[in-house]
Amino acid sequence: MYDSDPVFQMHRGGKIGVHPSVEVPDGAALAMAYTPGVARVCSAIADNPDLAADYTWVSNTVAVVTDGTAVLGLGDIGPSAAMPVMEGKALLFKRFGGIDAVPICLAATGVDQIVDTVAALAPSFAGINLEDISAPRCFEIEDKLRARLDIPVFHDDQHGTAIVTLAALRGAATVTGKSLDDLRVVVAGAGASGIAVTRILLSAGVGDIAVADSKGLIYAGREGLNSQKAALAEITNKAGLSGSTESALRGADVFIGLSQGTIAEEAVAAMADGAIVFSLANPDPEVHPDVARRHAAVVATGRSDFPNQINNSLAFPGVFRGALDARATTVTEGMKLAAADAIAALVGVGARPDYVIPNQFDDRVAPAVAAAVAAQARAEGVARS
Amino acid sequence: MYDSDPVFQMHRGGKIGVHPSVEVPDGAALAMAYTPGVARVCSAIADNPDLAADYTWVSNTVAVVTDGTAVLGLGDIGPSAAMPVMEGKALLFKRFGGIDAVPICLAATGVDQIVDTVAALAPSFAGINLEDISAPRCFEIEDKLRARLDIPVFHDDQHGTAIVTLAALRGAATVTGKSLDDLRVVVAGAGASGIAVTRILLSAGVGDIAVADSKGLIYAGREGLNSQKAALAEITNKAGLSGSTESALRGADVFIGLSQGTIAEEAVAAMADGAIVFSLANPDPEVHPDVARRHAAVVATGRSDFPNQINNSLAFPGVFRGALDARATTVTEGMKLAAADAIAALVGVGARPDYVIPNQFDDRVAPAVAAAVAAQARAEGVARS
Repeated sequence: MYDSDPVFQMHRGGKIGVHPSVEVPDGAALAMAYTPGVARVCSAIADNPDLAADYTWVSNTVAVVTDGTAVLGLGDIGPSAAMPVMEGKALLFKRFGGIDAVPICLAATGVDQIVDTVAALAPSFAGINLEDISAPRCFEIEDKLRARLDIPVFHDDQHGTAIVTLAALRGAATVTGKSLDDLRVVVAGAGASGIAVTRILLSAGVGDIAVADSKGLIYAGREGLNSQKAALAEITNKAGLSGSTESALRGADVFIGLSQGTIAEEAVAAMADGAIVFSLANPDPEVHPDVARRHAAVVATGRSDFPNQINNSLAFPGVFRGALDARATTVTEGMKLAAADAIAALVGVGARPDYVIPNQFDDRVAPAVAAAVAAQARAEGVARS
Repeated sequence: MYDSDPVFQMHRGGKIGVHPSVEVPDGAALAMAYTPGVARVCSAIADNPDLAADYTWVSNTVAVVTDGTAVLGLGDIGPSAAMPVMEGKALLFKRFGGIDAVPICLAATGVDQIVDTVAALAPSFAGINLEDISAPRCFEIEDKLRARLDIPVFHDDQHGTAIVTLAALRGAATVTGKSLDDLRVVVAGAGASGIAVTRILLSAGVGDIAVADSKGLIYAGREGLNSQKAALAEITNKAGLSGSTESALRGADVFIGLSQGTIAEEAVAAMADGAIVFSLANPDPEVHPDVARRHAAVVATGRSDFPNQINNSLAFPGVFRGALDARATTVTEGMKLAAADAIAALVGVGARPDYVIPNQFDDRVAPAVAAAVAAQARAEGVARS
């Protein structure tokens, strides 16, 4: 039943492989690549650990780690069923960043169990890309790993989405002639991506943001907030709004949808002039882009079949490429902002309503992001080369 | 200083890479390989876990796992310095077995920590090759993982060496006209490989084996034996010999060296007529092959620059290829014996003093081993396909 489906045909046998990058045609070559010759390389690294960056594949290698608890919109489908996504991610890492990425789907869901496992793996990789781990566990796992490891740890669902959303917002602000600090933004969704988007927009100087979860707007003192949402309440929603996402949209400049919900056309119509709508739920945007366009000046989605696709693949290959090139020990807020600015700069003054963000196949993107991220890492003193 | 060394040149940047096996030239292809198309594949696997074998790379993927505690003859050099060996192993897995192998060098040395880490990784791999983990921890780690996982777990330093040694001994027995059950064997070395070689030879029907460690011959009741050596004492050394390896060689048919020690020429000269000497220490054999040949009918080493190289690469690629082809849940003793017999059969009656084992580049070996191992797995009911 699957073999007639071209998608399943493409996935048959998996989408990636491990291949030698050196030839071993004979015993002489093998005696260099393996015993006895390899012992000299091992001894040299044992004496000087920095040499591992030069004489192993580790310096170009990233682990794509998931526990399968929040895969795409499918939810907690487990590690085996998550593998096709992680292979796809590895494919994108190579295609856009030239990075060797290894999918690691873990039979482990406890925070400390995941942290301990990934920490044990760390000598084999130059970076850790966390993926599709459910909130709020993803925050704690990332925080603990960042504290424990001296290599970049980057939860792409949070920071990849945040970087690309900020880049697109800069393009949209150019189109609408608005300034980031004047914007009033409503974010629907307070999961991993909603929280990360909110935080990077605040770092970039956005004026005010109201965030809603499935129970409505988040405000200081709302009952039952988890620690992440309580922290968010302290730095968002200056007006102390309560109620629904739609109610908050009245007069708002920007809607960013990172939820599974829907937004009525009337609510979009009630936004400020020159409204910006990023309706990023996949595959079904909160408001259909054709509907949103009737009222908004700029509309973006997460889908490839509409203009302005806000897609993480614009960020993570370049972010890791830059971090690895600089042998960065971490990914800082400054490096994320630099990545967003580099993406936005490629659009620059050429921004149009249907072009606020580069196409995901724009080959300028990853090198520009990598250069900006590496430069920022060096400027902040977190680079080793 | 390293760049002028051809060995270091070969290792620059590492020896393996991860590469896409499907093309994604445009958004339409990407929408199949990644979101949204990939969600259909994930959902199908979530509904029927067996589909992971068809639609991910897992079914052809093996983790090469070490903690860096017993690397080649270098000892405990740690996980980073072990990576060049593990990359080399991955290269051999692909070259000879067509298997995608991922080197995993762990920052973990506690038995339970390693077991828990590898168990957490298991959904990402169809097999686990343990490598260069020091004894006696390696025994406990392998036992615990075998009990816990339903995929093959194979400590190559033990079982790869054992399989190839048994194959070579069959060839040597043919040359010397001796029968395995009549042989009196002396094994020098009671580490991972010494114990595993002894066990497989006993399984194959070898008459009697005396094993020595650095303190001399192991016999029942010797003080201070660890549990592995105590168990070995129960099934070896029928004559209850004590003293040195060299003393036990008087009249013995076979010497197998898996130690760091040396054996005097006089001791080899005192062996039985038609003696067989496998002097496998690397890079310095316990007795030089040129010396051994003065007295022995068959001489083998672990080195590629002498005849009869006893090399693990004759075994592990085919063992895993066969286990993966059969989707075996484990590697049984019967599968190891079948692998040894398949290697030996390629030499068969054509055995000569300088040809008791195939060359490591003999392309018949891995397919023959794979077929024998898969057939045995199916015969024993441990295969899933």
